[in-house]
Amino acid sequence: MRPKKRAHKSGMSPGSLVYVGDKTAASDARIMLFDFDEHHVVEKPVHNIVDCLPFANAKSVTWINVDSVLLPGVLEAFGKVLNFHPLMLEDILHTDQRPKYEDYGDYIFFVLKMLDFDTIKNEITIEQLSLVLGENYLISFQERPGDSFEPLRERIRKSVGRIRKSRPDYTAYALMDLVVDGYFDVLEKIGDKIESVEAILASNPKTDTLRMIHELRRELIFLRKSVWPLREVIASMQRSESPLIHESTELFLRDLHDHVIRVADSIDTYRDMLSSMQDVYLSSISNRTNDIMKVLTLFSSIFLPLTFITGIFGMNFHNFPELEWRYGLQITFALMVLLGVGMYLYFRLKKWL
Amino acid sequence: MRPKKRAHKSGMSPGSLVYVGDKTAASDARIMLFDFDEHHVVEKPVHNIVDCLPFANAKSVTWINVDSVLLPGVLEAFGKVLNFHPLMLEDILHTDQRPKYEDYGDYIFFVLKMLDFDTIKNEITIEQLSLVLGENYLISFQERPGDSFEPLRERIRKSVGRIRKSRPDYTAYALMDLVVDGYFDVLEKIGDKIESVEAILASNPKTDTLRMIHELRRELIFLRKSVWPLREVIASMQRSESPLIHESTELFLRDLHDHVIRVADSIDTYRDMLSSMQDVYLSSISNRTNDIMKVLTLFSSIFLPLTFITGIFGMNFHNFPELEWRYGLQITFALMVLLGVGMYLYFRLKKWL
Amino acid sequence: MRPKKRAHKSGMSPGSLVYVGDKTAASDARIMLFDFDEHHVVEKPVHNIVDCLPFANAKSVTWINVDSVLLPGVLEAFGKVLNFHPLMLEDILHTDQRPKYEDYGDYIFFVLKMLDFDTIKNEITIEQLSLVLGENYLISFQERPGDSFEPLRERIRKSVGRIRKSRPDYTAYALMDLVVDGYFDVLEKIGDKIESVEAILASNPKTDTLRMIHELRRELIFLRKSVWPLREVIASMQRSESPLIHESTELFLRDLHDHVIRVADSIDTYRDMLSSMQDVYLSSISNRTNDIMKVLTLFSSIFLPLTFITGIFGMNFHNFPELEWRYGLQITFALMVLLGVGMYLYFRLKKWL
Amino acid sequence: MRPKKRAHKSGMSPGSLVYVGDKTAASDARIMLFDFDEHHVVEKPVHNIVDCLPFANAKSVTWINVDSVLLPGVLEAFGKVLNFHPLMLEDILHTDQRPKYEDYGDYIFFVLKMLDFDTIKNEITIEQLSLVLGENYLISFQERPGDSFEPLRERIRKSVGRIRKSRPDYTAYALMDLVVDGYFDVLEKIGDKIESVEAILASNPKTDTLRMIHELRRELIFLRKSVWPLREVIASMQRSESPLIHESTELFLRDLHDHVIRVADSIDTYRDMLSSMQDVYLSSISNRTNDIMKVLTLFSSIFLPLTFITGIFGMNFHNFPELEWRYGLQITFALMVLLGVGMYLYFRLKKWL
Amino acid sequence: MRPKKRAHKSGMSPGSLVYVGDKTAASDARIMLFDFDEHHVVEKPVHNIVDCLPFANAKSVTWINVDSVLLPGVLEAFGKVLNFHPLMLEDILHTDQRPKYEDYGDYIFFVLKMLDFDTIKNEITIEQLSLVLGENYLISFQERPGDSFEPLRERIRKSVGRIRKSRPDYTAYALMDLVVDGYFDVLEKIGDKIESVEAILASNPKTDTLRMIHELRRELIFLRKSVWPLREVIASMQRSESPLIHESTELFLRDLHDHVIRVADSIDTYRDMLSSMQDVYLSSISNRTNDIMKVLTLFSSIFLPLTFITGIFGMNFHNFPELEWRYGLQITFALMVLLGVGMYLYFRLKKWL
Repeated sequence: MRPKKRAHKSGMSPGSLVYVGDKTAASDARIMLFDFDEHHVVEKPVHNIVDCLPFANAKSVTWINVDSVLLPGVLEAFGKVLNFHPLMLEDILHTDQRPKYEDYGDYIFFVLKMLDFDTIKNEITIEQLSLVLGENYLISFQERPGDSFEPLRERIRKSVGRIRKSRPDYTAYALMDLVVDGYFDVLEKIGDKIESVEAILASNPKTDTLRMIHELRRELIFLRKSVWPLREVIASMQRSESPLIHESTELFLRDLHDHVIRVADSIDTYRDMLSSMQDVYLSSISNRTNDIMKVLTLFSSIFLPLTFITGIFGMNFHNFPELEWRYGLQITFALMVLLGVGMYLYFRLKKWL
Repeated sequence: MRPKKRAHKSGMSPGSLVYVGDKTAASDARIMLFDFDEHHVVEKPVHNIVDCLPFANAKSVTWINVDSVLLPGVLEAFGKVLNFHPLMLEDILHTDQRPKYEDYGDYIFFVLKMLDFDTIKNEITIEQLSLVLGENYLISFQERPGDSFEPLRERIRKSVGRIRKSRPDYTAYALMDLVVDGYFDVLEKIGDKIESVEAILASNPKTDTLRMIHELRRELIFLRKSVWPLREVIASMQRSESPLIHESTELFLRDLHDHVIRVADSIDTYRDMLSSMQDVYLSSISNRTNDIMKVLTLFSSIFLPLTFITGIFGMNFHNFPELEWRYGLQITFALMVLLGVGMYLYFRLKKWL
Repeated sequence: MRPKKRAHKSGMSPGSLVYVGDKTAASDARIMLFDFDEHHVVEKPVHNIVDCLPFANAKSVTWINVDSVLLPGVLEAFGKVLNFHPLMLEDILHTDQRPKYEDYGDYIFFVLKMLDFDTIKNEITIEQLSLVLGENYLISFQERPGDSFEPLRERIRKSVGRIRKSRPDYTAYALMDLVVDGYFDVLEKIGDKIESVEAILASNPKTDTLRMIHELRRELIFLRKSVWPLREVIASMQRSESPLIHESTELFLRDLHDHVIRVADSIDTYRDMLSSMQDVYLSSISNRTNDIMKVLTLFSSIFLPLTFITGIFGMNFHNFPELEWRYGLQITFALMVLLGVGMYLYFRLKKWL
Repeated sequence: MRPKKRAHKSGMSPGSLVYVGDKTAASDARIMLFDFDEHHVVEKPVHNIVDCLPFANAKSVTWINVDSVLLPGVLEAFGKVLNFHPLMLEDILHTDQRPKYEDYGDYIFFVLKMLDFDTIKNEITIEQLSLVLGENYLISFQERPGDSFEPLRERIRKSVGRIRKSRPDYTAYALMDLVVDGYFDVLEKIGDKIESVEAILASNPKTDTLRMIHELRRELIFLRKSVWPLREVIASMQRSESPLIHESTELFLRDLHDHVIRVADSIDTYRDMLSSMQDVYLSSISNRTNDIMKVLTLFSSIFLPLTFITGIFGMNFHNFPELEWRYGLQITFALMVLLGVGMYLYFRLKKWL
Repeated sequence: MRPKKRAHKSGMSPGSLVYVGDKTAASDARIMLFDFDEHHVVEKPVHNIVDCLPFANAKSVTWINVDSVLLPGVLEAFGKVLNFHPLMLEDILHTDQRPKYEDYGDYIFFVLKMLDFDTIKNEITIEQLSLVLGENYLISFQERPGDSFEPLRERIRKSVGRIRKSRPDYTAYALMDLVVDGYFDVLEKIGDKIESVEAILASNPKTDTLRMIHELRRELIFLRKSVWPLREVIASMQRSESPLIHESTELFLRDLHDHVIRVADSIDTYRDMLSSMQDVYLSSISNRTNDIMKVLTLFSSIFLPLTFITGIFGMNFHNFPELEWRYGLQITFALMVLLGVGMYLYFRLKKWL
């Protein structure tokens, strides 16, 4: 994950719609509408935003999912049809928002970050999910096609749980719950990676182990940035006095808040663990330096004196009677062996070997 | 201790009961019921949850202890009989909750973490304890069989202290007090370990000493995660305006709050100590590197010059009158001894030996 | 960026006007006036401050931009004509202020920091922007000529967006929005630098890599100092009960607040990344030390024993029968090759090569 | 100082009196009673707690000092005679409490930590002081005999200051003031130690210098643990609406609060200093490693080439005309001297010597 | 700067006047009185404190400056004449107070720290300034003679600014403003030192560079201790509802508060910079170790193999035909040159040179 670059928007009038995310436009962006209450459910693609209006005004719950924010025409159409504030439309388009909660009176605007672990690139991908909650409708804007909302769609179709009996705020909660469930999945992937790095650290730390720790720390920095403000978003939702959020949803929001705090907690725990692992890694390098030094010192300390002795008997002094001794060589050898063994035992004693 | 993995719950309807803990199911999970007031006490196993209902409704205090949350049938039965909220049942089953306090109006829900030190595996084990406090009953759900509540059972049976004269909130307090007492025991084990590592550090730090410090830090990270939110839980309980928590229990809760703060304080103290110990360890490695370097330098500095001298007199120049001197060898030796001793004294002077 | 030095003002009466910034006076400082409402727009240079008075009192919005605070006569003239508080004038002149918001009743005073990235000096430049917001006017004081307000001027001239329909508080917001947009540009430059340093770190860290990290950290320290208090400034503005700030501007301020928080977030993220990069750098040095040590140890461990062997056979003992062996040399050579290869394989085995 | 171990209390009924401190019982624990007002003063030992009752009920101020909490009979007697809450008695007995303030309505309970510097063991000793403040009495429970309250007793006897004219809350304040004065003494001892370690660090850091820093940090961790919560205790006392604390004492409590904050401040300052000193120590080790390395490198770099030259002329080639030169030896010597001096100058130039 | 030692006050009655600062008594301590309003100004030395009483009671503003707190007679006289609280007098005398604000009803008590940079000792000096603000008077107690208040005196004499038209709270503000101006001067000195250390760090870090950083950090720790609580003091003053502080002074206090925050900000910035500089220093040591290691390794790696070769041809084997080759020496030389150059190129390739 990298911090997103913000395209040059400087100097434009606030509220101008220029896409700032860095995804390439997908041509097959589609808009799906669900309209349901306890007794009926309608699921149909939307080709003209104006067609949504009767659904959005009807008492039944309408959930419109926009597959990609990349078609500014769609955003502008929504803006006109449902009279949305241009700043909100700008925030939907600029997918580098922090998670946030904004009450515009007639509707409430949420920004969330959907996280996924791309097993091919081996990194976390991030996608902005913008929700607009009205009295009878919920509109969800994704950054690009592909999502993990199928289970919810299935629950709507089959009327599992309370989804069909509730208002759009519950639908919004259900979407958020799926997003937060995704966080747990990503966290688990990170947790697996941390464990594998820890195993490497325990057996055979290598030069690139720290780089792996560094990359995990980076991922966590970005994860934290996505998750941390979400706590405040959900807390604002809980405290909200907006009539759009019903009392019956409150218990569910409390539960969701709890989940987000658990995710945030785990992120902090992982950060602490990585920081501790890094210390272990650095000390393992120091220990290895020591080990290498010991071998060097051992060889030098044994062979430098021995070589010196051979040097002595290699001197060409004419008057060097010891050279003529009968067992000179043998005595010298014995001496050298003694010295070598002595040095070895000495280092042994000093616990250097 | 490791962070628990959350089984894939993603996409299920909120409130579905799927066990998420990682314990294997115990076949002998049993449910025990205590019903008591000042004058009588009944202790009997429960085979059918419906049997609990008359007790739970009676004025006397009923404490039902469920040995294991692994039997979803039991949880669902409780849910139906006592009309519990599905989200709460889900939280009881998912034993990776943070400690929490949730007021559902007719009943209050607590999550606590029971800690124990497994002397065989030499690590802390963690078990979730969920309490549901009603007007006349307290239900405790353990994650798996085996607990440390025997002293409380004994006090109920023998009517020691005020337990038989109080309402279920006092029973809940008594259970929590036992759980927190367990924290002190675990802390002491950790404290003993820290002291033994500190002793190793003072005498003879080894390569794996840092790993031991690292593991202790990890244990403390998880401990902290279990204990820290408990402060807020008990504070919420104290501040609570629920009629289920009586004024007479307040002093006891204040005392309990105090104990938890002491545990949290000790955890922070231990963290500080471990962090300081780690610094000592790292500096001991550096010091050792220095010591090894000194020996290496000493040997090199003494024997390299000496060997050089032997090299000189080993040269085969034809015109090398010194080689023919009568006491050439002796003079050279004297010179070499002088040089060696001089170097040694020099290093001595420099405080390197 | 360096912390600004405050010229010796000590001992002067509070409110005395002495320039404290460190820019050299620009001779072409000019004052431009915009007066506009929905129906008309006037743009003209101001030569005498008194000329501004009728505009400032008229119902239409007046924006006066002062190019440079270096002409104390101008400041004093404004002070007299519009009856400004001397402490405020002092703060405008002393361009080492923190961003701040001060409500003087009839007018509100803001201080902001305009950031720019000087691509020639390769460092961030900082310029103080002081805004005085009255009922019908907005006066902006820049530290020196040259700004990035052209897009706003263009919008006023062409009546793009709501600028011509709003009160001066919206004009103030529009200026702030441009300033904060500038922060994103600077952040992006910093982000690019961080990425390039990270690339160096991954391939070939050099001695001056840490210095580059250190300089980036310094830049961020100063950036943070400029941005952090701005959050509070805008929050104060949002909470303000001053009639000068209209309710219709509130949504825009909320949006601006959000932008500033995103900037502040990114600064913190970059700090975390730099801190992590520094750890990687330091460990790469340690790793390199280890690599060098290994080569040294390898050479010493192989050649010290071999040289010792040649030393043995270089001794001049008269009784040294091995020297007379027919294949003595060859055997010795074989021995030395064996030893050398053995050592090499041993180090290979120990994963040192 | 070490963290106190809590004896196994687990499973006992809350409020049971089992001594948890680790002091051995002193046989000569005595109880002294002071009863005084502006006009009279009585000082007498108490042998039977019941004898205290008339004093405690009388309008005059009664201060009862219990020398040691180790006699549970005494605590129980007080509990019965003055109707104290069992949890409070438990807290008095368990001398591992944090400093705290608890209002029981008829009486207020304080826990403080008395610190002393044991110059023989060269460490800080800690003793719990529990105060019970009633309308007409103050009871102080010490952990063991021996205290620093003599000056207060003298002031009572001689009616110095306002002590004889005030109510028991002033007596409590006077005791606390003495305890906090003791903190300043202990801090000064720590300060002296830090200065002496700093002196060692500046002149000649040794292997155990870091251990000394580590021990000082440990002492400060425990000190902080004793002092930090005291701030809250005194603040609670100041804010208290209990009629037991009179308005006239408030100014004195404010002063005391100020003293405690100064102690806490100094502890933090010392922590910062120790942390900085540790950095200096670690860098001094690195510098020393560098110094040793330089010597090693110097010797190796000078003598390895020289020895190589002698090796050349020690080779036994038959066709080696240079060996027969008349001044071969002298030329070689000159060459070697030149080389040696050259290397030396080179290192000098590189600032390695 | 060092933490002040508190003389043994332990056991004395609170409010006893014993000097605790560590300055030697100055014999020429004098007391100067200014009495002024818009129309007149009187400046005269005070020899008897009672003489001040008529001035202090008159409607005009009276500023009494006491040059040194060392004459307890003076403090006691003020205490009696103006009926000051003994605890306040004690705080004036004990010059180790934190900056504080205390409202005694009829008068307000402030403690500030005056900082100065002693260019001879090259360290920051600290002096306590205690202010007592009454309805018609301001009394300032300095720790020792010598101050930087001359500009204020001059402004009073010449009626510059609003000083002669305001009440004593403005005089107090004017004094504080001078004190805070002094902080900027000291900060600038520190800033200059930091820059010079940074320059050393960039060119040629030495062994004592870290000590210089360490000393600067120490200075900042003490500076922070003096400045940090002052923010709270001035904020308390701003929030104060005391009639002694007039609304007209509020704007000036806001300005002063702003200045103090800027000082505090700069201190934190400097701390961050020093911490970053320390990292750079430590890494420069590691880099230097690496450089030295490289030279050592280079020499060893080149000369150990070469010396080994000379050793081979120095062996005395009788059967050593190579020695008899005509160009044996030349070939060997060529080989050795090749090997040496090869090693050198190899290291070059590895970027070690």
